[in-house]
Amino acid sequence: MTVREATDADWPAIWPFWRDIVEAGETYAYPLGATSEQAREWWFDGSHVVVLTEAEAGERVLGSAKMGPNRPGRGAHVGTASVMVDSAARGRGVGRRLGEHVVAWHREQGFAGIQFNAVVETNAAAVRLWRDLGFEVVGTVPEAFDSASHGRVGLHVMYLDLG
Amino acid sequence: MTVREATDADWPAIWPFWRDIVEAGETYAYPLGATSEQAREWWFDGSHVVVLTEAEAGERVLGSAKMGPNRPGRGAHVGTASVMVDSAARGRGVGRRLGEHVVAWHREQGFAGIQFNAVVETNAAAVRLWRDLGFEVVGTVPEAFDSASHGRVGLHVMYLDLG
Repeated sequence: MTVREATDADWPAIWPFWRDIVEAGETYAYPLGATSEQAREWWFDGSHVVVLTEAEAGERVLGSAKMGPNRPGRGAHVGTASVMVDSAARGRGVGRRLGEHVVAWHREQGFAGIQFNAVVETNAAAVRLWRDLGFEVVGTVPEAFDSASHGRVGLHVMYLDLG
Repeated sequence: MTVREATDADWPAIWPFWRDIVEAGETYAYPLGATSEQAREWWFDGSHVVVLTEAEAGERVLGSAKMGPNRPGRGAHVGTASVMVDSAARGRGVGRRLGEHVVAWHREQGFAGIQFNAVVETNAAAVRLWRDLGFEVVGTVPEAFDSASHGRVGLHVMYLDLG
């Protein structure tokens, strides 16, 4: 498995799992019913975007992550990221590998920390992954996410100090 | 003092204090050095925008607030807002009046709650105002704002349940 920088040309391979993940309604608060073009603009929004691929009759994209400053101006020293993994590749450490890449990239770029603004509290795999990588839950906004299967659940703000 | 819906035509009256507040570097993490046109697009970004005015040789704008969903999709039932008050009008209850308007507007629109993502912890007037209106600090992201006078200080996530 390889993590490399993504380009627009990777979008057709990202879009199917991007759409499935958003429309499943369990982990991301993107607008629902987006077109491929809209979603591509949100994912490639100026952030640094990577894909995790494996060699398989060419190259297969198993997941993607985007990362960059969480805020502009006087908040730009803290980064943020989003990670999506194709459900067909779950349980193979793809999310962890992308998560580790996210942390390493922020260190290299000199960020002071990484903030996740909205980790759905029922997304156990994500919460466990980020805790394993050293993130802490700073606070939880109650009932801020309308989970398709759990109803309104909290959104964790998570933070990793890189200082 | 009156609070009314704002239009693009109000921007020339908002821009001087918008710029002063952002460039002062104490309370907002907008990009620094923005042009008037850029800032207008950020303030009038599809949110509901209001101005607080007083009658004085016509109408004078003392402050402005923008408000709307904090997240799209499955997070759109929680709102958010930003409030700016002309420094020349501080201490006259302009912020409080706009804050009360923000809360009332969200109630009327049927939001489940209001979340502020980034209240600078050294912005005592704002923290006090929001606490007075019932908001609680859900958590504080340490050193996430580079205050011009205090250096790196925390950003509070604040929340008001409207249920």
